[in-house]
Amino acid sequence: MKIEELTEIVNQKLDEYMGIFYPQKIFKSMKYTVLLPGKRLRPIMCLESARLFGAEIQDALPAACAIEMLHAQTLIHDDLPCMDNDDYRRGKLTNHKVFGEAIAVLAGDALLTFAPQIILKHSQNLGAEKLVKLMDEYFQAAGAFGVIAGQVMDIEAEKLYTPYQMYDADETEKYTDEDKELLHFIHLHKTSDLFKLALRSGAIIGNADDEKLNALTEFGEKMGIAFQIADDILDETSTFEQMGKTLGKDKAAGKLTYVTLYGLDKAKEDLNALIGECFKILDENGLKSEIFETILNKIKNC
Amino acid sequence: MKIEELTEIVNQKLDEYMGIFYPQKIFKSMKYTVLLPGKRLRPIMCLESARLFGAEIQDALPAACAIEMLHAQTLIHDDLPCMDNDDYRRGKLTNHKVFGEAIAVLAGDALLTFAPQIILKHSQNLGAEKLVKLMDEYFQAAGAFGVIAGQVMDIEAEKLYTPYQMYDADETEKYTDEDKELLHFIHLHKTSDLFKLALRSGAIIGNADDEKLNALTEFGEKMGIAFQIADDILDETSTFEQMGKTLGKDKAAGKLTYVTLYGLDKAKEDLNALIGECFKILDENGLKSEIFETILNKIKNC
Repeated sequence: MKIEELTEIVNQKLDEYMGIFYPQKIFKSMKYTVLLPGKRLRPIMCLESARLFGAEIQDALPAACAIEMLHAQTLIHDDLPCMDNDDYRRGKLTNHKVFGEAIAVLAGDALLTFAPQIILKHSQNLGAEKLVKLMDEYFQAAGAFGVIAGQVMDIEAEKLYTPYQMYDADETEKYTDEDKELLHFIHLHKTSDLFKLALRSGAIIGNADDEKLNALTEFGEKMGIAFQIADDILDETSTFEQMGKTLGKDKAAGKLTYVTLYGLDKAKEDLNALIGECFKILDENGLKSEIFETILNKIKNC
Repeated sequence: MKIEELTEIVNQKLDEYMGIFYPQKIFKSMKYTVLLPGKRLRPIMCLESARLFGAEIQDALPAACAIEMLHAQTLIHDDLPCMDNDDYRRGKLTNHKVFGEAIAVLAGDALLTFAPQIILKHSQNLGAEKLVKLMDEYFQAAGAFGVIAGQVMDIEAEKLYTPYQMYDADETEKYTDEDKELLHFIHLHKTSDLFKLALRSGAIIGNADDEKLNALTEFGEKMGIAFQIADDILDETSTFEQMGKTLGKDKAAGKLTYVTLYGLDKAKEDLNALIGECFKILDENGLKSEIFETILNKIKNC
């Protein structure tokens, strides 16, 4: 299947899963952000990972959609006034701008438990042992050892630097190795952890062995970092219309980004190198996938 | 075992489970609220429910503590400025007053996934099928079908009434049946759902049959409502020192409470009646428990 078909299948399934129950306001708020237009990269990677190991798409759809719901949860809470205070996301108003802060906090909370509930409810045929493994993976990625660790350090990092003070391509040398390690930690958790979750969940559904799981973990890590570098480059070089969110905010807020730390040229160079490493991992582990290749090339040509 | 001993065991275990990892700030924030002094009613009810069906206390401790963590999660988010905006909880500053709003939001998020992770990690001996059942119960209670549904309607209800306008013991008749149904819904989900979760989780660990599970569900529902009526009565009649939180806020905010809707006398009467029904359920189902009896009597004599 092509990416466009998979995107369509995921969108349909997300719409189906995100039912509106009582109290309608909370379910509408959850559904609003989950169904914002998006590339559905994480669910597609989960489906493709499952397919590589011979699993049926139907068996991986609940886990794939759950990861998109978790992703939506992180967006809702990251956009809150007390965090990044963003008004737009994917070209639409952010959740709290539409539903208010209280409902946005609760919608995020609700998605955190609704997502694994979707897996348990719709993947019973996988058997209890596999469900427990999927839950393990989900909690590890969703919690304080995963995306939340990244978001915490992202917030902390923001306090370390004075707005506007830090960015100057000629001044990248003033950053220490510790700054670079910090940024790596943030990207590894905020971004790579969900890609890893997607890839590993799919592989578990397809009964992949530990060697393949490790290869996919490494692939997910590197792809996540590459994705984040591309995102940081785009934050420098695109317009609101292209990105659907307010740009240049990271710089203005004095936030660490790959571009502020390394400069634009080095960022592009490192992005290319990482994409190359991703291709190598896939190649060396017999994980031939047109879908993964297409995604990697899109990230490369950000 | 006596309640005091169980409380001590739960406190020790909570302290043990709530480790401080990197980034320390988020784990410290999580631990801060989980370890606030409290009666540990929910974990104790979980342990006692498990004991009634012959389970070892060790086998129920992870689930019992997970429910206290979930309870702490609801407290952290409910206290946020965008929700109830409370500065004190159990006599101490609320989480966001100590760690800031952003970390408080993330600590709540982290607890939502940390809690079931504790069950999966420390209850492997229960077997995958039972773990899946425990996860099901947890998600149902923690999400938009459970406590969150209650909190959403609590917030919505607040908008329906003008501060100070509503409370007058002689004017209780102005409230409609719909108001009363709304308050019942809020209490049923905000309060009863966690008691039900505690009782049902313990019973599942002890292999209780459906009949007993249903009895415990009914018991948990009624006990939760009774607990909430007692809380509303205390909000009227006690001092900050006794309760450890700011009082009279509900009334000032025009919030629906059992006392504002029914008056103090009727509230006390209904509380007594509910406690009587709880005793009856236990009696009729052969669920003889000194622990439950002690808890019910404490609620009655609020």
